[in-house]
Amino acid sequence: MAEFPQLSDNQTFLAFISYSTIVISKMMLMSIITSFFRITRKAYANPEDALASGKGENAKKFLRTDDRVERVRRAHLNDLENIIPFFCIGLLYSLSNPDFSTAVWHFRLFVAARIFHSIAYLTPLPQPNRGLSWMIGYGVTFSMAYRLLKNKLYL
Amino acid sequence: MAEFPQLSDNQTFLAFISYSTIVISKMMLMSIITSFFRITRKAYANPEDALASGKGENAKKFLRTDDRVERVRRAHLNDLENIIPFFCIGLLYSLSNPDFSTAVWHFRLFVAARIFHSIAYLTPLPQPNRGLSWMIGYGVTFSMAYRLLKNKLYL
Amino acid sequence: MAEFPQLSDNQTFLAFISYSTIVISKMMLMSIITSFFRITRKAYANPEDALASGKGENAKKFLRTDDRVERVRRAHLNDLENIIPFFCIGLLYSLSNPDFSTAVWHFRLFVAARIFHSIAYLTPLPQPNRGLSWMIGYGVTFSMAYRLLKNKLYL
Repeated sequence: MAEFPQLSDNQTFLAFISYSTIVISKMMLMSIITSFFRITRKAYANPEDALASGKGENAKKFLRTDDRVERVRRAHLNDLENIIPFFCIGLLYSLSNPDFSTAVWHFRLFVAARIFHSIAYLTPLPQPNRGLSWMIGYGVTFSMAYRLLKNKLYL
Repeated sequence: MAEFPQLSDNQTFLAFISYSTIVISKMMLMSIITSFFRITRKAYANPEDALASGKGENAKKFLRTDDRVERVRRAHLNDLENIIPFFCIGLLYSLSNPDFSTAVWHFRLFVAARIFHSIAYLTPLPQPNRGLSWMIGYGVTFSMAYRLLKNKLYL
Repeated sequence: MAEFPQLSDNQTFLAFISYSTIVISKMMLMSIITSFFRITRKAYANPEDALASGKGENAKKFLRTDDRVERVRRAHLNDLENIIPFFCIGLLYSLSNPDFSTAVWHFRLFVAARIFHSIAYLTPLPQPNRGLSWMIGYGVTFSMAYRLLKNKLYL
């Protein structure tokens, strides 16, 4: 198979691979945490799942919402709303020949902010811990979007 | 660092960068609008956030849903369900040597349809404004998916 | 326009294009299924949509949730939580010169598992059908993430 000298020589792209894989894996862990709380707190969304905690009519009472489960689900949705845009814009940004050091600090800041965001959401830590970490991640993505559009607007 | 003659010479890819960055930034604005309505209408999902509008026991009454907030959240989720698939399929499409003019009109139509969709959702405008703009965006993404699979199906 | 010998010669990337386009199109079908059940079961989220099934005050009673609609929406959200990370990590993985056969079997397994997951969710089939198919898709994505980070960790 052909080598990709362009991509595999590109340090920024290689760094983007590592950071984005880490932060997307973190996001995927939210599914496991949701399942964990659904099972330990017996709070299911589907009748066929509730049968894990009770038989027949007894299972119906486990079709309920639970504060802990809903909190993890909100954190997961917030990850989708923020980490996926980071991936999309960060991918294009890392392919647009940015300054290596600037790019890597964008990635580092984003990953650190989102890991802290999850901790702040799930603990929960008092505000403004979660709010600030959300804002940092958001700012990083907008900063990359701005740099993309500033230099190369093709409409 | 190495240049990317392949990507930076590719007009379609450059146009994709601009249009997708614009439409993803638009999607991210939904987070700001949600926060704005949560604060102005005092309707929070987390107890630690409700403290922004009231102290102690008083804060609990702000743990509630609000029509306006829920509407923005539905619009945001609809964006995730439509703009992210556009990004994924559009990225692959723009790398597959499509006709430049065809590709750019796909991107333009999608971005215009999704901006109008947000306006129609948040105003709200009467149907079928929102329905039609949703359908146009959906059709654009499927059209790109069809073109990808028609020419190059490798299974 | 310049050719992309690197990308269009890369069998793994071509296979990724086909499999990911198929599985993202499948995800997008969930929107159509949701609309179908909202209309046939007269259960809407927005007042302006409810007017499709009744006029004036009469429309308000159709602003309600329905088990069938909520089930499709949960399946759709689960797709977003799993198929988008597959796309992101799979894209980077397919650009990192993996073994062709290993890569294609990752893609095949993922697409099959997610199609079965949708069938199991919407029918619904008894557990552990849905649980196992979810786990296979999840495992495939983590396997690709692990391979990416094992060889090329640039932090």
